[in-house]
Amino acid sequence: MTSKIQIPKSKFQNLKVSGFKFSAVSAGIKTPGRKDLCLISSEAVSNIAGVFTTNKIKAAPVKLDTSKIASGKGQAIIANSGNANACTGARGMKDAKETAASLAKELGISPMLVYVASTGVIGHPLPAGNIKTAIPGLVKKLSVHSLPDAADAIMTTDTFPKIVSRKININGKTGTIAGIAKGAGMISPNMATMLCFIVTDIAVEPNALNSALKNAVKTTFNMLTIDNDMSTNDTVLLMANGALKNSPLRKNSPSYRKFKNALTEVSYNLTKMIAMDGEGATKLIEVIVKGARTEADAEKVCRAIANSLLVKTAIYGQDPNWGRIMAAIGYSGADVQEEKISISLNGLKLVSRGKGRGNEASLRKTLSKNEIIITVDLSLGKKEARVLTCDLTEGYIKINASYTT
Amino acid sequence: MTSKIQIPKSKFQNLKVSGFKFSAVSAGIKTPGRKDLCLISSEAVSNIAGVFTTNKIKAAPVKLDTSKIASGKGQAIIANSGNANACTGARGMKDAKETAASLAKELGISPMLVYVASTGVIGHPLPAGNIKTAIPGLVKKLSVHSLPDAADAIMTTDTFPKIVSRKININGKTGTIAGIAKGAGMISPNMATMLCFIVTDIAVEPNALNSALKNAVKTTFNMLTIDNDMSTNDTVLLMANGALKNSPLRKNSPSYRKFKNALTEVSYNLTKMIAMDGEGATKLIEVIVKGARTEADAEKVCRAIANSLLVKTAIYGQDPNWGRIMAAIGYSGADVQEEKISISLNGLKLVSRGKGRGNEASLRKTLSKNEIIITVDLSLGKKEARVLTCDLTEGYIKINASYTT
Repeated sequence: MTSKIQIPKSKFQNLKVSGFKFSAVSAGIKTPGRKDLCLISSEAVSNIAGVFTTNKIKAAPVKLDTSKIASGKGQAIIANSGNANACTGARGMKDAKETAASLAKELGISPMLVYVASTGVIGHPLPAGNIKTAIPGLVKKLSVHSLPDAADAIMTTDTFPKIVSRKININGKTGTIAGIAKGAGMISPNMATMLCFIVTDIAVEPNALNSALKNAVKTTFNMLTIDNDMSTNDTVLLMANGALKNSPLRKNSPSYRKFKNALTEVSYNLTKMIAMDGEGATKLIEVIVKGARTEADAEKVCRAIANSLLVKTAIYGQDPNWGRIMAAIGYSGADVQEEKISISLNGLKLVSRGKGRGNEASLRKTLSKNEIIITVDLSLGKKEARVLTCDLTEGYIKINASYTT
Repeated sequence: MTSKIQIPKSKFQNLKVSGFKFSAVSAGIKTPGRKDLCLISSEAVSNIAGVFTTNKIKAAPVKLDTSKIASGKGQAIIANSGNANACTGARGMKDAKETAASLAKELGISPMLVYVASTGVIGHPLPAGNIKTAIPGLVKKLSVHSLPDAADAIMTTDTFPKIVSRKININGKTGTIAGIAKGAGMISPNMATMLCFIVTDIAVEPNALNSALKNAVKTTFNMLTIDNDMSTNDTVLLMANGALKNSPLRKNSPSYRKFKNALTEVSYNLTKMIAMDGEGATKLIEVIVKGARTEADAEKVCRAIANSLLVKTAIYGQDPNWGRIMAAIGYSGADVQEEKISISLNGLKLVSRGKGRGNEASLRKTLSKNEIIITVDLSLGKKEARVLTCDLTEGYIKINASYTT
């Protein structure tokens, strides 16, 4: 598979987050030679917040992390790609616990401070032996420069690693927020829809950290859909180790708001990268719905359009079939009135008061762009929502008709 | 496009339903030369029942028919393919009304007895002039043998015409129920999801006719999904002209139950044909969910599996990735417990108590079949549901990336 986006490695080679080290190795879970195990480790015990899949079938590592996250404390995250460790019964939980225990022993910390994440095929036993064997080497390779390696190691059908970082000034000191994510398929709304690990050296009080993460996830990762298939393994973890030695940010302080905005920006950019790198995708699509009576209505219309196979294939084919957008608005379940609906695409007005404007020729031209913004005005109220997605292509079918093989 | 199924024309060449005539012509709405306008006409005024799309954006003919159906009376149905007459504003309604009026005049009946249906591209004005010009020829061609022609004329991306008929004995007389349908894309649950016209010579009381149709639609057409996109034009009409001269069937009589069952069978077989002929489909998929606490839960799980792009692509690719079925069960919103779930596919047990049985090799073999039955037992209660769908292939993408062009 060729990478759609070339992110120059040089861009991140000097990226450091004080007090954090990173590492990645090939443990033989995926194709031999491909990195498939990574580690994020903090010098000191950190505050940690997490958001997990709302799928009722949860992978073993999600169950394990959920049992720890209430403590609000963490020091290391170990993640593998190539195997989801989901639907693996008691053995799966034992494997996840043993992975945490082995790593804890090697790092000399409590297993309660180790979080585990997995992504890959569901229902196959985790090659826990491989992971255990690889852990000493993984710890030995820890380096302040290796966040890009970790981003590489969590990829499955992703075509490029996803890294975003922001620096912000906190009372005269420069703090860093850096995140990595993997996406590609089984990506759907209503939870954090992939693996994402964000680290910061900024000290943040536990409840403030938690609320900043929930706020960021709500408007970014949760407003993303590739195929409306919700995974068993989705995990977002945010670690703040306080290495910046600022006085811990409290909720509603000006510095907290700055932190919250930067965190949301990091999350949004990772979300955008995931949408852009949807399996087989050729176009990034943003759906914006305005003028809804309620926020829930705005979101329903966004999701109906973003999940419509017919809309996604029309955009792929650069086919000016705006009627499919109207149909999706109509079946979204939201309160809508046909004769009040306006639709534009990349600023080109397609529908006014429910009727087509007949500018299919210009529309076809606009559809050749790589980024498509569909804006719908329901003209019924003042609420709005936005969702990120991608087009649906033969590439998606090809990838997913043979993923386990 | 090559037809997936060859239905011998001979099978239906002697099909007649007393008192009904049928006709189809090319009115120049679709590609020149392709039949795109059809007529079903009864000698006598009939009882009629209808079910229409629940999409809030409704095509003009749906709005028009909805205003007439409460009368319970009808005598003719005129349907065109190639244009949906949806999102066409006041002009669209005027065009639908004028179509009904022209036909009524030609047949010498009241316009209130004429029902109109359209399918095709949304948002383009209906070529009403073409239809008006074609009506005299359409009426002239009416014949008792032409139901197969009508089935041809309502096709859009369908690869074969869909006709089903059943004969039943009503108090010593042989009555007929015959139906035609078109499907292919923009096919989703919660309404009659396509055009379907069913005619019978059996006399049925209006409220009995209505309730038999609603019952049939609930368990057949409404349990069908191709792409989860709900159309603006879905219409099912059932006309009973009483030409059999039986005493009209009343609700809950033994003959009514016989009629209801035969009607449901006709509807089920048409539904199955639509699923089989889903755009680009290579496999028919039936999802059966048992052991649910409530019927709603059983249906949620059915629909989640049947609408999962990942399940549909795995089945297309004959990829033994049953984890995707588990994931869909988990995000369905239904009450489920991982450790109680069993899954089999064409009788092969894949998952017991939430855990894989490790028989991927046999599964791969089973997946080479053209008909796939996925059975899920939630082991929580006694309710069940079933949904028909098809696999998702590059063919679907190709068709829908260029439908208007």
